[in-house]
Amino acid sequence: MRSRLLVLIFYILSLLLHLPTTTASSCCSIEGLPLVRNISELPQDNYGRGGLSHITLAGSALHVEVWLQTFSPGSRTLIHRHSCKEIFVFLNGSGTLYLASSSHEKYPGKPQEHFVFANSTFHIPVNDVHQAWNTNEHEDLQMLVIISRPPVKVAFGDDFLLQSLCHPFCSLHQ
Amino acid sequence: MRSRLLVLIFYILSLLLHLPTTTASSCCSIEGLPLVRNISELPQDNYGRGGLSHITLAGSALHVEVWLQTFSPGSRTLIHRHSCKEIFVFLNGSGTLYLASSSHEKYPGKPQEHFVFANSTFHIPVNDVHQAWNTNEHEDLQMLVIISRPPVKVAFGDDFLLQSLCHPFCSLHQ
Repeated sequence: MRSRLLVLIFYILSLLLHLPTTTASSCCSIEGLPLVRNISELPQDNYGRGGLSHITLAGSALHVEVWLQTFSPGSRTLIHRHSCKEIFVFLNGSGTLYLASSSHEKYPGKPQEHFVFANSTFHIPVNDVHQAWNTNEHEDLQMLVIISRPPVKVAFGDDFLLQSLCHPFCSLHQ
Repeated sequence: MRSRLLVLIFYILSLLLHLPTTTASSCCSIEGLPLVRNISELPQDNYGRGGLSHITLAGSALHVEVWLQTFSPGSRTLIHRHSCKEIFVFLNGSGTLYLASSSHEKYPGKPQEHFVFANSTFHIPVNDVHQAWNTNEHEDLQMLVIISRPPVKVAFGDDFLLQSLCHPFCSLHQ
């Protein structure tokens, strides 16, 4: 009886707490997000990667992931692949994109190097293992990352064969 | 007999023409697009709008539309709505985003004004009528536009009620 009462109280409280959000959304927010967002005020994270600044500009609530990522000189992503296409728009700096095609390579696991630079784009085919690396010693590499079909599932590994990894996919940011 | 021969020749020619593309795609393209693309070398269009520069960075082949749009001072989009969410990432300049919510407004057809600026984002709810306007007299307004579920269908009109328009939706860029 006591637990039912607690559940009822919790339910009423959650309804009350939800009301102001719903009302506020009529003018300047959608699904809890304000319409205009100042990027410099958004939370940053590095997910345990030294030299990385990650800011989520849009998440799965908007049916597309848009991130602003900045890599200090020498820093890089893990080697990984994911179950969707990914588009990079490079805003500042330059670096190297390593890409091992899952289907076309004569030598699977041996990545190709692509030079990327400010005002260029790069797109990653589905499931192709890749790594972005700021190989420019003097400048940050800054890029927008766009992923079309969240939630995305990602697999990480130590080499471009990704043989020693959690299979089939780990959660994003694991 | 002659027409069958022509069809056969055409078929063999199309196979031959297709081969180099398929081979080339193993190293540096996907679905006909090169992996690295220099934005300054991509085609621009203004779709008949004075003051607009539109560059498609990614299209429906990549399951997400990503555009780079630049509006000279005083220029603007048409008043329109579309059947998907849209995210703006403002890179340079400042301006005004007019937005008439389709469901929450006390006064439908009367847009709210939102000031937008470099290093800010804005997202448009599904079907909300809106217009981006470079109201800054001194600078170009440059933004990335991300649309999550192409092909997108768009409706245009002369006011924020969009009563006098092609219904239910026109094709994009009509």
